[in-house]
Amino acid sequence: MALSHIEHLARQIQAGDRRSVARGLTWIESGGQHAEALSEQLYPSTGRAHVVGITGSAGVGKSTLTRGLVRQARARGRTVGVLAIDPSSPFSGGSILGDRIRMNDLWQDDGVFIRSMATRGALGGLSHATPDAIDLLDASGKDLILVETVGVGQDEVDVMRFAQTVILVSAPGLGDDIQALKAGLVEIADVHVVNKADRDGAARTAGDLAAMVAMTPHGANDWIPPVKSAVALRDEGIDALYEEMQKHLDHLNTSGELRRRRRRTAEARVLGAAQAFLSAALRSPISQRDQVEEWFDRVVDRALTPRACARALLRRVGRDGQVGQEGRT
Amino acid sequence: MALSHIEHLARQIQAGDRRSVARGLTWIESGGQHAEALSEQLYPSTGRAHVVGITGSAGVGKSTLTRGLVRQARARGRTVGVLAIDPSSPFSGGSILGDRIRMNDLWQDDGVFIRSMATRGALGGLSHATPDAIDLLDASGKDLILVETVGVGQDEVDVMRFAQTVILVSAPGLGDDIQALKAGLVEIADVHVVNKADRDGAARTAGDLAAMVAMTPHGANDWIPPVKSAVALRDEGIDALYEEMQKHLDHLNTSGELRRRRRRTAEARVLGAAQAFLSAALRSPISQRDQVEEWFDRVVDRALTPRACARALLRRVGRDGQVGQEGRT
Repeated sequence: MALSHIEHLARQIQAGDRRSVARGLTWIESGGQHAEALSEQLYPSTGRAHVVGITGSAGVGKSTLTRGLVRQARARGRTVGVLAIDPSSPFSGGSILGDRIRMNDLWQDDGVFIRSMATRGALGGLSHATPDAIDLLDASGKDLILVETVGVGQDEVDVMRFAQTVILVSAPGLGDDIQALKAGLVEIADVHVVNKADRDGAARTAGDLAAMVAMTPHGANDWIPPVKSAVALRDEGIDALYEEMQKHLDHLNTSGELRRRRRRTAEARVLGAAQAFLSAALRSPISQRDQVEEWFDRVVDRALTPRACARALLRRVGRDGQVGQEGRT
Repeated sequence: MALSHIEHLARQIQAGDRRSVARGLTWIESGGQHAEALSEQLYPSTGRAHVVGITGSAGVGKSTLTRGLVRQARARGRTVGVLAIDPSSPFSGGSILGDRIRMNDLWQDDGVFIRSMATRGALGGLSHATPDAIDLLDASGKDLILVETVGVGQDEVDVMRFAQTVILVSAPGLGDDIQALKAGLVEIADVHVVNKADRDGAARTAGDLAAMVAMTPHGANDWIPPVKSAVALRDEGIDALYEEMQKHLDHLNTSGELRRRRRRTAEARVLGAAQAFLSAALRSPISQRDQVEEWFDRVVDRALTPRACARALLRRVGRDGQVGQEGRT
């Protein structure tokens, strides 16, 4: 019965039903078996959307810029999902009232779905829930998915692995160039944009970024990350940024790089899932892990080595998902 | 043949042969299959030593204090192993000449083995090689193992999980209290020591630490971490610190907490080993992972979900270590 309920929700999501999308995302944020079952149901209908990561330090204007990109996409008839993973983002309610008002048009548009995720510090962190949330929006038929994160911390950088295109937002006079460099964000940026380009020092920030791009190896990939300028609050330069984002997707498609990125994403997701299963096995109620407890006791008593125990645990965790195979080793 | 060679080395280490201990540690630092096989051989003869972690910010005098503790142990007829995991530690050659000279008595003492490990940034990081290195010194018959790490970064905090007693070293006027608090070190300290206690502000630093201890929950454990003072350079307060360290071990033994800590260590080691196996499976030469490659392709093509792939990978990795079980699921 629970399964048919999940199947029903999955079908509603695939049909693009807003309420079901909202409910599904709440499940995914909470985690647990239902969330997992839902994600399993949805996965086959994912892989269509263009997933774009938007990152950069606090105060560079990521949310305003994201809003601008949403409008560009809508003007071209494309549907959009937004995941804002940033507690201080206006999308997350950490906004000044003006932001909310400026965003009203987006909240009322059926072709746009906005969700803020404030799951920092939750078990598994950002990297656990985010890919499933992206999948859900993807399965719901959104053409473009914008994932906004504040660019500090390994978690935020990791999240960008699930994007096909990464936009790194900078602004003059914030020393963001250095911060971004430290966080390893420059290496993963596909498109740079200097926002607040009407401010003093914008040309220098753009020049610094271009110099960093020139020094950064980009593999066998022919794409050289462009450095664009924008004044998001006045909607200047957003159309050009949108075009650049599209150009990057075209490049991914024609160069075969898209498949390579999807592979990288798949590896990251599989490893993430494997580690989540391992942790879950250790967190499960004692009654359900008698054998694991006994193994640990044997490790403490030096009757079993940690590595031998790890192998046994890996087999056990790998098997647990296989209904009907309980009797086999 | 290779195995008998490893068995021979293991026996030499168990007999306390210095050269073999040095060679074994070099193997373990380099990693790989030989290191793994050696650790597997040694594990059954571990679990005797008292493992003490010594941590704190740079400049608090950890190395001088460690030296003092070594001398206290030697004066009581106990043998000591020292692992210095700190690139700036005098043990690591990052010393001023005076340090080396002051340490000469230790280097010439057969009852002391000192090794600096500079494996930061290596595959698997500190937490991978350190427990095996501790085991090796333990198996070689050392009564006390001092593990010195600079208290910054998650890796250094994680390493402390392999210790039964953690000494957190502070010094006046360095703002260490705040740093240690940030790094989560105050929660894991069993004994506090304010070094350089002859300097201005020592009493305040000790007071701040005592206040933090009072605010920090220590579980069902009756042990309240004491705050000691020392001037390590003049060998003042080191005997009292040593006694406190012994008292903590006695407490662990009588309260049953020792077994609980060993369990926690075992869990951390098993999880670490499992994750290392997983990463290794993804790094192995393509020829050896055709099936894994095919699985990833199927994930990219949405024919297999990341979670199902993770289960398959876990089973495969768990099985690989089981010689003679290749034909079974």
